[in-house]
Amino acid sequence: MDTLTLSAVAKKMANLDICMMQTRDGRGTLHSRPMSNNGEVEYDGNTWFFTYEDSGKVRQIRKNSKTTLIYQTEKFLFVEVCGRSKIVNDKAKMQELWFDELSQWFPQGLETPGICLIQVIAERVHLWDKGEEGLMVVQKSQGKKKKASK
Amino acid sequence: MDTLTLSAVAKKMANLDICMMQTRDGRGTLHSRPMSNNGEVEYDGNTWFFTYEDSGKVRQIRKNSKTTLIYQTEKFLFVEVCGRSKIVNDKAKMQELWFDELSQWFPQGLETPGICLIQVIAERVHLWDKGEEGLMVVQKSQGKKKKASK
Repeated sequence: MDTLTLSAVAKKMANLDICMMQTRDGRGTLHSRPMSNNGEVEYDGNTWFFTYEDSGKVRQIRKNSKTTLIYQTEKFLFVEVCGRSKIVNDKAKMQELWFDELSQWFPQGLETPGICLIQVIAERVHLWDKGEEGLMVVQKSQGKKKKASK
Repeated sequence: MDTLTLSAVAKKMANLDICMMQTRDGRGTLHSRPMSNNGEVEYDGNTWFFTYEDSGKVRQIRKNSKTTLIYQTEKFLFVEVCGRSKIVNDKAKMQELWFDELSQWFPQGLETPGICLIQVIAERVHLWDKGEEGLMVVQKSQGKKKKASK
């Protein structure tokens, strides 16, 4: 299996915008649902999703931040992103990430009551592209750096 | 959300043959990998995969049978199958499920040393098809019936 750099992972993940996001309830049971991120943003180890504060996934993440993202395309690209999530309410960050298609889910844009972000911070990305398999494990120091820079 | 019958689920899942299969290691960490089942077999609540006895997934299933299958198509069909797996070594069952494409992974066919089956017995199937969402929960009595008929 190849060891992948972040830039190699970003190249493979370019334009991927729909995944199954998995969170865990209080009993550790997995719950999946399709979620859209912005495939045009270059992957930097963080994946961002707009959602609502009162959604099941936000409640689950507040209790257990472990999150998995599964991407699967018909060109035989498969990606598993394992990491930790946090809920972000920073309006400047929302402004930076907003794109017009989101208004189908958030009719009042960034003023929609209860709107928030889920940031999934990767700890491990496992990737299969046709026959090839690769793994990126985020170094602990990088993880700390990311936490410190929030 | 709609409550789905098995036949409704089978109709949606027709021709799906590649998923991400998730098993758990001893620490409860999820491990995913792409796996191919035979999409031409009508779904009856069981999904079958050929694999090797000495694979990580078989070792994981023997310790913790909880398994999730995630299917995702570019036509916006998303399926989460949550269930329990068991390892099946019955040659007659293998014969019934064998199809020629499998020989790329099992060069000696059913005589390949270490070949075995993983049977994923669904407890819950959650399905999203474009805007529609549906759920099938397998009744406990059905689960028992399936266990008894192995």
